[in-house]
Amino acid sequence: MAERSLLNQLIDALRCLPGVGPKSAQRMAFHLLERDREGGARLARVMADAMARVQSCRRCRTLSEHDLCGICANPKRDASLLCVVEQPSEIVAIDQATDFRGLYFVLGGRLSPLDGIGPDELGLDVLEGRLRDESIMEVILAISPTVEGSATAQFIADFAARHGVKITRIAHGVPLGGELEHVDGGTLALAFAGRRDL
Amino acid sequence: MAERSLLNQLIDALRCLPGVGPKSAQRMAFHLLERDREGGARLARVMADAMARVQSCRRCRTLSEHDLCGICANPKRDASLLCVVEQPSEIVAIDQATDFRGLYFVLGGRLSPLDGIGPDELGLDVLEGRLRDESIMEVILAISPTVEGSATAQFIADFAARHGVKITRIAHGVPLGGELEHVDGGTLALAFAGRRDL
Ligand SMILES: [Zn+2]
Ligand SMILES: [Zn+2]
Repeated sequence: MAERSLLNQLIDALRCLPGVGPKSAQRMAFHLLERDREGGARLARVMADAMARVQSCRRCRTLSEHDLCGICANPKRDASLLCVVEQPSEIVAIDQATDFRGLYFVLGGRLSPLDGIGPDELGLDVLEGRLRDESIMEVILAISPTVEGSATAQFIADFAARHGVKITRIAHGVPLGGELEHVDGGTLALAFAGRRDL
Repeated sequence: MAERSLLNQLIDALRCLPGVGPKSAQRMAFHLLERDREGGARLARVMADAMARVQSCRRCRTLSEHDLCGICANPKRDASLLCVVEQPSEIVAIDQATDFRGLYFVLGGRLSPLDGIGPDELGLDVLEGRLRDESIMEVILAISPTVEGSATAQFIADFAARHGVKITRIAHGVPLGGELEHVDGGTLALAFAGRRDL
């Protein structure tokens, strides 16, 4: 058999996108090749650039191609409020749905010693450094209310107490086990408004 | 405001894919950046390559990065049978669902004088050249049974008759107005088996 055609290679490669099966991949490949070469070429450029250059913001650990992300570098954000989330996508959801305009910190997961995820993997040393060095008045935990999430929240509450920083947790309007970025904006806004001391 | 972040540029660029809205685009971007950089980098490379190099096979007009596509260059295909389709994606559907192992010709549309689509736009001169120069015994029309499709079929039937080539049309098991690549394989196979003289 001859080498795989570029068309088939493109269909295969599109399968790395979440939710894209063989039929969708084929439809996407034909659409780009027959109707939108320019869009496909631009997407290819931006994707290559993003895969190579996007890294972690050194202050909040969200995805950014800069040393400091747009939020951390924005002097208009309220630096006295810090919201701790599990994933970068949750920052987008919170910023769109609520009037929170403080700063963020991305854990990238929850404490899970059995999976080798300890405080260092979640950057909790970096987070504690911020509570020590910055003028943060309140830490708002937007961590899912699972066993591991609660252990993570307690770990953070402990060192927040040592540094005399108030700590709150968003209200449990968020469904158990639900991922924050899939919660509707209204629920998320209510959860923020109803946050309470931990 | 700062320049748009690479992450936001990637989310925007993903919207050129059919069926991808803002939410899916965001999910795809985060998935690639957080979990599959390698897949994303490969997809970017293949996509750039395909957008730049895929063109039309000079014999059948399907998409190919070579002068002759894999099917036209394959000496095992039956060169006495020629199936005429509207779109390249229909070749994939027919080859997967039926036992047709002849050659193809891609029109790229249907005759539509009001839209400026005449015989030349559909490569009908190229098709007639093949009926004249190659040893084709039968032309099978897999063209949708619309008014424009029927006019196109009649146009081809006329010059096929001049060159003494038998012409058939796949049976109308295909739903009216339905796109061939969305028809289930069984229906498509029946339509092939039930083809009749035109
Ligand atoms: Zn940041
Ligand atoms: Zn060909």
